[in-house]
Amino acid sequence: MSSPALTRVRMAYARIEATDRPEIWIDLRPQAEVEQQARAIDERVAAGERLPLAGKLFAAKGNIDVAGLQTTAGCPAYAYTPEGDAPVVARLRAAGAIVLGTTNMDQFATGLVGTRSPYGAVRGALAPARVSGGSSSGSAVAVALGIVDLALGTDTAGSGRVPAAFNGIVGLKPTRGLVPTTGVVPACASLDCVTVFARTLPEAEQALAYMASPSGRDLPALPQRAPGPWRVAVPPTAQLGELDEGWAEAYEAAVEQLVAAGAEVRTLDLTPFSEAAAMLYGGAFVAERYTAVGSFVDKVIPEGGEGLDPTVAGIITGARDIPAHQLYADQERLAELRARAEAQLGDADALLLPTTPGHPTLAEVAADPLGANARLGRFTNSTNLFDQAAVAVPADTVDGLPFGVMLIGPAFTDERLARIARLLQPRLRIAVVGAHLSGQPLNPQLLALGAELDRTTTTAPEYRLHALSTTPPKPGLVHVGAEGGAAIEAEVWRLPAEGLGQLAGTLPRPMTLGSVLLADGTSVPGFLCEPSALEGAEDITAYGGWRAYLNN
Amino acid sequence: MSSPALTRVRMAYARIEATDRPEIWIDLRPQAEVEQQARAIDERVAAGERLPLAGKLFAAKGNIDVAGLQTTAGCPAYAYTPEGDAPVVARLRAAGAIVLGTTNMDQFATGLVGTRSPYGAVRGALAPARVSGGSSSGSAVAVALGIVDLALGTDTAGSGRVPAAFNGIVGLKPTRGLVPTTGVVPACASLDCVTVFARTLPEAEQALAYMASPSGRDLPALPQRAPGPWRVAVPPTAQLGELDEGWAEAYEAAVEQLVAAGAEVRTLDLTPFSEAAAMLYGGAFVAERYTAVGSFVDKVIPEGGEGLDPTVAGIITGARDIPAHQLYADQERLAELRARAEAQLGDADALLLPTTPGHPTLAEVAADPLGANARLGRFTNSTNLFDQAAVAVPADTVDGLPFGVMLIGPAFTDERLARIARLLQPRLRIAVVGAHLSGQPLNPQLLALGAELDRTTTTAPEYRLHALSTTPPKPGLVHVGAEGGAAIEAEVWRLPAEGLGQLAGTLPRPMTLGSVLLADGTSVPGFLCEPSALEGAEDITAYGGWRAYLNN
Repeated sequence: MSSPALTRVRMAYARIEATDRPEIWIDLRPQAEVEQQARAIDERVAAGERLPLAGKLFAAKGNIDVAGLQTTAGCPAYAYTPEGDAPVVARLRAAGAIVLGTTNMDQFATGLVGTRSPYGAVRGALAPARVSGGSSSGSAVAVALGIVDLALGTDTAGSGRVPAAFNGIVGLKPTRGLVPTTGVVPACASLDCVTVFARTLPEAEQALAYMASPSGRDLPALPQRAPGPWRVAVPPTAQLGELDEGWAEAYEAAVEQLVAAGAEVRTLDLTPFSEAAAMLYGGAFVAERYTAVGSFVDKVIPEGGEGLDPTVAGIITGARDIPAHQLYADQERLAELRARAEAQLGDADALLLPTTPGHPTLAEVAADPLGANARLGRFTNSTNLFDQAAVAVPADTVDGLPFGVMLIGPAFTDERLARIARLLQPRLRIAVVGAHLSGQPLNPQLLALGAELDRTTTTAPEYRLHALSTTPPKPGLVHVGAEGGAAIEAEVWRLPAEGLGQLAGTLPRPMTLGSVLLADGTSVPGFLCEPSALEGAEDITAYGGWRAYLNN
Repeated sequence: MSSPALTRVRMAYARIEATDRPEIWIDLRPQAEVEQQARAIDERVAAGERLPLAGKLFAAKGNIDVAGLQTTAGCPAYAYTPEGDAPVVARLRAAGAIVLGTTNMDQFATGLVGTRSPYGAVRGALAPARVSGGSSSGSAVAVALGIVDLALGTDTAGSGRVPAAFNGIVGLKPTRGLVPTTGVVPACASLDCVTVFARTLPEAEQALAYMASPSGRDLPALPQRAPGPWRVAVPPTAQLGELDEGWAEAYEAAVEQLVAAGAEVRTLDLTPFSEAAAMLYGGAFVAERYTAVGSFVDKVIPEGGEGLDPTVAGIITGARDIPAHQLYADQERLAELRARAEAQLGDADALLLPTTPGHPTLAEVAADPLGANARLGRFTNSTNLFDQAAVAVPADTVDGLPFGVMLIGPAFTDERLARIARLLQPRLRIAVVGAHLSGQPLNPQLLALGAELDRTTTTAPEYRLHALSTTPPKPGLVHVGAEGGAAIEAEVWRLPAEGLGQLAGTLPRPMTLGSVLLADGTSVPGFLCEPSALEGAEDITAYGGWRAYLNN
């Protein structure tokens, strides 16, 4: 009998050990117990049962009830062990998914950094000196490191999106009310949403369907829209404020990518969004956090405050005395801002924004815990206040680190936002030196995969080129180092990750994909070849490139 | 040229003088100015313009902007003179109605009594020792005394219904959002509604149509309902709590009247309504009153508090320090209560309740300003918290004073509630002694008008009866006094006021309607005749009644 679920579980625990990120988990289930459950799933599938999420592993944020595991909300003194699963957990399990444990988080879901936890600061999956983002920190990193396939987060101010952006994964922030919040420790009960992380959009979308409805169907009908191409609103660049270096360009590239994919891009005034965002912690709304856990925090502080994160405790106790009359005033002002924001959106399907303005280091957050955190919510804070849906996706990399964008749209357009987000899948680069060059026989393969020519360049002067005896004829590129190497004509193409994967999956011997060093010192994936292919092949390095050789 | 609007205005100012209730008005327009406007309306109608409310006079509560008149909200120091009308005022004027002035009210619409005003306590229209009810006190009394045809009120806790009940008139409390509250000084901005008072339901309904939509049409479509008779929910009597003497019986009679009219009456649990009602002043919601006018009150108090009602000022400043976290908790509890209330209503069209539990005297309110006021809101307080619509109508009289009931239903069922309320129109009595007696030729006329036999009795022994030469033959009843009079067989019938009006409007000569003294000492309307008809008519008093004469 094949046992994919069991195999997947064993891989997961191996990844846990290999990645050595103990701060991800608050309550991790023993491997033996999970393996037993995986065997049962494998047996049910083998017996013909339809379990659409069979073999998928997931993690639950530490504020979501998983039967028998600790619900902590990131605070050991708050911990309790629920007897039952939160409905959202139960639904994923009913569809065949297996939960591995509960994850670390900014305490009481109060933070976007991932460092506000007595269980330890969570480091970025791809950049350990930078924060993971939060509050759904452990969940996002567990997905990004490939430990689990899916992870549940929550999102009040951006907690289901900021960590997606920082770790290069997808985060779906569903419309409020679409996924039940029963069995979830509230941050702001009227704003909280349960979210899902995955490495790809289709996986996240499939999980969301089961989170929202036990059958994976029965989602609310999409609001009507006037026919025509996707309409995407973007703010004037100046309204984005200060962004990390290179991020404005990366955002511009995402806008251009939507235009290239046929979307109609229009400008809106971001002011009502920005002003509402500033109200989330700056106004009376923060008092709802005191409603949720204030009496607990007030009880623990005189006992020494053991296990309380000082920043979080300060925010919550600081909300104790905010007067209700200010809340009414803020709610009225929010209603006005929301009306203005909706007028700005008009009939646009979505607002495209960077998910965050930048990605701070752990040290930067430690130096200014409130300021660094506030900056991260600039674009995410208003979404739940306005009762909108959002999809956060990786768009590109800047200096090798993930850059994420967000599509925000009206309530219940979750599915539509995901469809538009597909157009934003990050485009990877590939260097080609032979049959895939423009005008050469295999170039149409690239075009069919959605590739676009990025630039014409050469490799670093460390390569040699050989004519291989393949059909069609191809060159073999080989790295020899500065000594004896030359610069070889190359084209860099950009294509969706999916396209690169398809190329990699259908490579004919003796071709290989490897990292190719370019003249400007950067490295991109490119075609190389097996060493054996070079035996007896003509060295054509002196031509300076495949075309020159052919034209000879 | 006929000038009905001008005539109506002159009548109104004559009524103002005759009724001598200066406390009704805060800012009354000069008669000459209003007359000029009435002439203009009359001319436009004469010229063929369609002005559906032409000739109707109305008053606006003191918290509603009327161009050029003082908006005070019942506080002289708060007064300002708006340049423009509130939209609801402008719409009534555009339809031809004429505004007479702004009326007295419980200050800042904070009260249900009508006494919390530096402009003086407003006395009940029909019972000057009792309160008028509030906060729309002056508006209700102006309608009840026949000074104006319509008056605008507002309703947050019951201010558009309690004074309707106390003054024997109709009060429509529309669904929140149906009538714009722009140009209205807020009490609790998220709950406030503009209401309308009138002496009859059709007049109130016509006015509401223009208040909600400039065209008088375009009202939202009624929510769907399953077919069948009207479904009316009523609580068990014990859940009504202590009512004034005779009010439980009057309420029971209203329930029976609905049953007699074909409605299906069912029982519900009133608990969620009562618990929500208690939250309106007992919880954090009162803080919204501080949001509205708190900074003004805080400014005026150190200057001596001139013109502030001490009870109102105490309520508003007492709300200053209510914490926002408690408001969140109360909002969550309210959501639960609302869900329970809606489950209790189920598919009922309406909940029937007494409008208030009793009608206090001015002295009783002075002795316990908060307690007496709180009692009045027992049934009205929850309506706006639950986002429901309500119609308050007079149902009966108890000891000669009005008793009112209220139909409460889901949002946007305003029109349906009014239709059900028509079944509750108070029934008047009429005494008949001749052709309208049971079994006599004109009795079907009574039945067609919805009349029911109340009892068989005789007149006081002060009448004589004559056989008139009419077709069909009728007797002529004439009052002669104790000397020479006799008791004449009579039937007392009950019928809607509208029915009695139709009888009065179609009286054939020589019949007249007058007051008939009955054996028990009460007087009811009854058929008499013109003196000339008695000339040459046979005196049949000795038979003791018309039937006995006919059977002779």
